[in-house]
Amino acid sequence: VASVASEVGIPALKPRPDDAHKGDFGRVLLVGGSRGMAGAISLAAMSALRSGSGLVTAAVPETIAEVVAGFDPCVMTVPCRDSDGHFSSVPEDLKQQLKVADVVAIGPGMGREVDRYFLQAILELSQPIVIDADAIHLLAETHSMIKNRKSATVLTPHPGEFSNLANTEFSKRGEMEAAAVKFAADQGCIIVLKGHRTLVTDGSREYRNDTGNAGMATGGSGDVLTGVVTSLIGQGYDAFDAAVMAVHIHGRAGDFAAEKYGQASMVASNIVDSLAAAFKSHVAVGAEVRIGF
Amino acid sequence: VASVASEVGIPALKPRPDDAHKGDFGRVLLVGGSRGMAGAISLAAMSALRSGSGLVTAAVPETIAEVVAGFDPCVMTVPCRDSDGHFSSVPEDLKQQLKVADVVAIGPGMGREVDRYFLQAILELSQPIVIDADAIHLLAETHSMIKNRKSATVLTPHPGEFSNLANTEFSKRGEMEAAAVKFAADQGCIIVLKGHRTLVTDGSREYRNDTGNAGMATGGSGDVLTGVVTSLIGQGYDAFDAAVMAVHIHGRAGDFAAEKYGQASMVASNIVDSLAAAFKSHVAVGAEVRIGF
Amino acid sequence: VASVASEVGIPALKPRPDDAHKGDFGRVLLVGGSRGMAGAISLAAMSALRSGSGLVTAAVPETIAEVVAGFDPCVMTVPCRDSDGHFSSVPEDLKQQLKVADVVAIGPGMGREVDRYFLQAILELSQPIVIDADAIHLLAETHSMIKNRKSATVLTPHPGEFSNLANTEFSKRGEMEAAAVKFAADQGCIIVLKGHRTLVTDGSREYRNDTGNAGMATGGSGDVLTGVVTSLIGQGYDAFDAAVMAVHIHGRAGDFAAEKYGQASMVASNIVDSLAAAFKSHVAVGAEVRIGF
Amino acid sequence: VASVASEVGIPALKPRPDDAHKGDFGRVLLVGGSRGMAGAISLAAMSALRSGSGLVTAAVPETIAEVVAGFDPCVMTVPCRDSDGHFSSVPEDLKQQLKVADVVAIGPGMGREVDRYFLQAILELSQPIVIDADAIHLLAETHSMIKNRKSATVLTPHPGEFSNLANTEFSKRGEMEAAAVKFAADQGCIIVLKGHRTLVTDGSREYRNDTGNAGMATGGSGDVLTGVVTSLIGQGYDAFDAAVMAVHIHGRAGDFAAEKYGQASMVASNIVDSLAAAFKSHVAVGAEVRIGF
Repeated sequence: VASVASEVGIPALKPRPDDAHKGDFGRVLLVGGSRGMAGAISLAAMSALRSGSGLVTAAVPETIAEVVAGFDPCVMTVPCRDSDGHFSSVPEDLKQQLKVADVVAIGPGMGREVDRYFLQAILELSQPIVIDADAIHLLAETHSMIKNRKSATVLTPHPGEFSNLANTEFSKRGEMEAAAVKFAADQGCIIVLKGHRTLVTDGSREYRNDTGNAGMATGGSGDVLTGVVTSLIGQGYDAFDAAVMAVHIHGRAGDFAAEKYGQASMVASNIVDSLAAAFKSHVAVGAEVRIGF
Repeated sequence: VASVASEVGIPALKPRPDDAHKGDFGRVLLVGGSRGMAGAISLAAMSALRSGSGLVTAAVPETIAEVVAGFDPCVMTVPCRDSDGHFSSVPEDLKQQLKVADVVAIGPGMGREVDRYFLQAILELSQPIVIDADAIHLLAETHSMIKNRKSATVLTPHPGEFSNLANTEFSKRGEMEAAAVKFAADQGCIIVLKGHRTLVTDGSREYRNDTGNAGMATGGSGDVLTGVVTSLIGQGYDAFDAAVMAVHIHGRAGDFAAEKYGQASMVASNIVDSLAAAFKSHVAVGAEVRIGF
Repeated sequence: VASVASEVGIPALKPRPDDAHKGDFGRVLLVGGSRGMAGAISLAAMSALRSGSGLVTAAVPETIAEVVAGFDPCVMTVPCRDSDGHFSSVPEDLKQQLKVADVVAIGPGMGREVDRYFLQAILELSQPIVIDADAIHLLAETHSMIKNRKSATVLTPHPGEFSNLANTEFSKRGEMEAAAVKFAADQGCIIVLKGHRTLVTDGSREYRNDTGNAGMATGGSGDVLTGVVTSLIGQGYDAFDAAVMAVHIHGRAGDFAAEKYGQASMVASNIVDSLAAAFKSHVAVGAEVRIGF
Repeated sequence: VASVASEVGIPALKPRPDDAHKGDFGRVLLVGGSRGMAGAISLAAMSALRSGSGLVTAAVPETIAEVVAGFDPCVMTVPCRDSDGHFSSVPEDLKQQLKVADVVAIGPGMGREVDRYFLQAILELSQPIVIDADAIHLLAETHSMIKNRKSATVLTPHPGEFSNLANTEFSKRGEMEAAAVKFAADQGCIIVLKGHRTLVTDGSREYRNDTGNAGMATGGSGDVLTGVVTSLIGQGYDAFDAAVMAVHIHGRAGDFAAEKYGQASMVASNIVDSLAAAFKSHVAVGAEVRIGF
């Protein structure tokens, strides 16, 4: 498919030092949510916590702050100024949190009614960022800014979002993947092109995932992935490694959920609950180095 | 009982294609709820998700939007204009959602204080619809509209609701069933007449269910059924097949719940939680073709 | 202790007819709650559902309606006019619900800031009622009204509440029990005097419970009992039988919870969750007739 | 490290008398929370209930009262006057609760935007108190008041909080521990210096914990510890004994959680859920007397 040969292993999970404290695993800030879609950012936050982060904060429009806070007592929230259930244009309430975060994700459940200046403020951060869901649509008009970012940028589009981003209708998965590799190379970012065999690429390397199943084609599944990849970046993994490991673990968690609930009945929160089993089994096998996917 | 001979098999569950995405399993819109009855529409939505739908949205009066959103992070909501905890007359806030939905259900927990124009707007949709609970009472005055609908209409009355709809007091189950068959034939709809041995009829075919138990005589049990049947229609099953399969699976889930919690102590959310086991066992046996119930 | 000989068996659980519908198990209305004590009435409602009732409604001050509704989608609520987080004086919002309920309980989490006219309206109902917790304190000034009630009245005081009701400090459990028997005889009511070996008396019969453990000395445990006894009355059990069975089952559920979580760590919601096991084991042994406790 | 020899056993859990009632295990009042950090005080309260307390109340800014109340129906709340999501200066709403509480904890999720007079009012109580998290930062300016308290004062700083309290940057854990022992001796309080091997000291005795793991380096873990130690003090354990037992049990619960979910995926609510197993296993081994840690 792509012209670039690749050889990518799934990184091993780093052991947690005995004398670690919660700050050692990164401060994760997840920005998203809107009235009617409070669950998406909550799933991302709960997933980040269950991927090893010690401090996870969800920044959300204040209308939904209580719903998000109610899902999990371990997630902190930043209620932000609100315009009819969406973020208002400038994230004033986030200034302090944006300063201290080690990684920032934006997009889950955010809706498209958000001002592009809001996304721009995130893009201008010096930390690594993850861009997902509706934020990818917002980005579609403005992606030139990615190239100038000072640290890693991970985009996690599903095919529809990538088509919009590339401003192209693709008739074959292969063409879309080739475009994704090119986009990543051109923009200096990492693309996680979701689908049956999710592709992770930084423009020179490619990883195609072999875990997961069709039961994961359910609302919220992508938000879980966003939480996992953001968490791993916050823990200090290289962004490409983090994306590869996240995609692999996410699929594995989905496989555990399918085993327990069946593909038809499993829901995204079952994937969250299965992250523990997925990480445990990943620790058990250690780093798997694979050649020529 | 009825004059029509029938031979109905329970359809098999279609496998999920490996490269499926969440949109492939239909956009389900469930309309209902009112202050004091937020749980009903929530149970329906959670059940739809656990029946294979990838995208499930509950449209509810905005007073209860946060309660509904808080039950399950995988359910999306549309908070609608509100009149004292009930939908106000015209579902303006729903216009966009009604346009994109593949199937719409209306009724669970809606209460009877809703303007009939609200129901009428749903009846005029071109998609298949499912009408349950209080929406059936609203329909009782206006059922002539069903006949002119362009796609499938499924009604899921319990005996009291059907009596109201047929404007008749029935002294025997048999008489009520015969009237249900006639009603379905006359109106060109599918009737799911709930009870000990739930009847599904489209006026020419009849299916009598043999799963389920008296522990399912508990508030919310019918809302779960609404969620399952709506989900299956959204996944592209023929509406009659969907109703048959839903009734069968719902009863099976109830049987799993009774086994675990006993008939006295089981509650409707236990049925929701047992849908996974019910669908898994249904997959295991495959399509069961039965003759002459 | 008491001068009355007694011989009381624990009633068996009636089987649920195959063709039952949710209305056949009674409409239960539980009135209580206040800001800061939303959990109590919620525990009572969740317990009533898990004791076999098909339709359970919690009537609560509207400030807490969303919290109560959020605990369990199977519980319905009636948000009532509110005075600083407590019921305001006359339960106008309850009129319809009070008319259709088969049994009404009042008290859990209600607080003492409630107008006595509120309690009086409940006492004047023609249905059986259960009076618990703060409602017993309110009753302490006004108990003459019990005698004139037309149907069963069950009071479920703990020792402090009974002391207040009897306007007496008791130095020994025996004296208190004797006073409870006399109170029940004088007022024509049933007293459930909670404690290590809970006493149930109607003034002529006495039942002393032998299930339960000290882990049940935890906030909310009494609210669970209120839910169970109210549910059983709503299902048509004689009020004294219902009280005996409820106390027995409640203790048994507490024993299951203690076995699982230990006496120190078990909480009232664990007792709710153990009601299923308690009812199942009660069904298994059938009616136990015991002589001369 | 410290100049004081020590010999400290982990106290056994006192059995619960058969005729106990919920008031016998102490009235616990936990003061904390702020908008965005409702989970911390909730975790503390849920932990106190699961450590044997019968009556646990969380006093919180009223903005978050419903979120806190929604986590666990067994926790009572006191919604307090609010200034932009934080406690306003004087805890008027708490007066009655402060009077009846057997022990008061302050700090979890409180934020630093709280007026120092608020903390001062707690310090002036005659009951034992536990000071955690942000309240320790507030204390840093004002710790002279501890010395004059009439009952036990337990401080549970993590290293950053202790550095702030001692107004010193420590380069080695040993130096910090020595300073903690001195601080405890000087101020007449008990210090729980959290970390890999948590130190409990009253200035003359020292206990170093050997349970727990790096999976506990996750947000909310410390709040759970606050709940456990406050609960045990409320049950009448000597404050130093309570702190030792709490630290030991908390670590053990964390070990159970790690076993089940793995160090990466475990979250603080898993520790809460594991308290039951930890207390049960502690009861099983009885008091462990250890010499010369």
